[in-house]
Amino acid sequence: MKGLFIVMEGPDGSGKTTQINLLKEYLEEAGYECLITREPGGTVIGEEVRQLILNPEHKEMSPVTEMLLYAASRAQLVHEVIGPALEEGKIVISDRFVDSSIVYQGIARKLGISTVSAVNAPGIGIYRPDGIFFIDLSEEEGLRRKKEQKNLDRMEQEGIDFHHMVSEGYRKVLSGRPEVMKIDGGRSIDTIQKKIRNHVDELLKKKNR
Amino acid sequence: MKGLFIVMEGPDGSGKTTQINLLKEYLEEAGYECLITREPGGTVIGEEVRQLILNPEHKEMSPVTEMLLYAASRAQLVHEVIGPALEEGKIVISDRFVDSSIVYQGIARKLGISTVSAVNAPGIGIYRPDGIFFIDLSEEEGLRRKKEQKNLDRMEQEGIDFHHMVSEGYRKVLSGRPEVMKIDGGRSIDTIQKKIRNHVDELLKKKNR
Repeated sequence: MKGLFIVMEGPDGSGKTTQINLLKEYLEEAGYECLITREPGGTVIGEEVRQLILNPEHKEMSPVTEMLLYAASRAQLVHEVIGPALEEGKIVISDRFVDSSIVYQGIARKLGISTVSAVNAPGIGIYRPDGIFFIDLSEEEGLRRKKEQKNLDRMEQEGIDFHHMVSEGYRKVLSGRPEVMKIDGGRSIDTIQKKIRNHVDELLKKKNR
Repeated sequence: MKGLFIVMEGPDGSGKTTQINLLKEYLEEAGYECLITREPGGTVIGEEVRQLILNPEHKEMSPVTEMLLYAASRAQLVHEVIGPALEEGKIVISDRFVDSSIVYQGIARKLGISTVSAVNAPGIGIYRPDGIFFIDLSEEEGLRRKKEQKNLDRMEQEGIDFHHMVSEGYRKVLSGRPEVMKIDGGRSIDTIQKKIRNHVDELLKKKNR
């Protein structure tokens, strides 16, 4: 794996997409080849799975089905996009990755961390993130921001209790891991971006050493 | 689990659908409530997954994605249809179940039996078949029959080597298990149906004892 694999995690409305776009700008100006992917989706097959998962009419979807569909979309993304880009030495920035499933399906849907990890392992293979940014934000603030944006999808339509479990789940799953940097999502966009850029610079130095 | 769960397994073209329809007729005439399901599919969500899996244009689908999509369709089918029907005491006859995935993805796609079993376990839960009929047929004969029928889907379009591994895989996975009855698919429709009916009668007697 010659490239660098960066993942942005955090609850809905935490500002992941904004930060990813700013980071991409920065890295491309510095001359790096950079690829942004999103979950679920990012491939033709994955986008079809995305529509299936997020369709607000699919209220009957079981938690296990949801977990397996996220894992399927992810497996295809790794196979077609993330794996090949990393092998070519590119920087891949992914909007969510397996920790999202561990938090949303493993904790908030109560399927268990080990079940979600086991189901996702075959699709991920060797491609583990070099760095994960966790933008931490209160669930109330995250939902308030999202509601201003657009129609809510099936996951975003879940109640405040679900989103509370997601926020708590993130804090549990992403704490104490060396590859994770936690950032206070209440800070300004510029402040957050500065922290991210500094840390990515360090990761690139380490990789090229 | 008050009902009876019957599964029909075998390669493409082995005559599973014909046999299932005849069995349903027989059981309904005898006064049983009977439900036929098919894999992948059988629910609104599952049928959408089915279209995704079998679409001949999706040549880029990775084996892991394929395994996870089959498991997702199955999990939803168990959750919405098979589980509730069995709890209500109905007879459920499924055209394929988890052994199809073990053979097609575990053996023919080489993902391994234990990986496929682990991925499917959360969705199946307690619902294990009471009886599995394995209609054994040479791959050449199965493909010949299918080709006469209709346009081939993505799985049926695989080459003879793949279908050879499927036939061999079935013989391996379904041998020596007490709940499996193997039937020679080269026999007449009536002969096969007679064997199936006799065995289902026995299963019903055991269940009601």
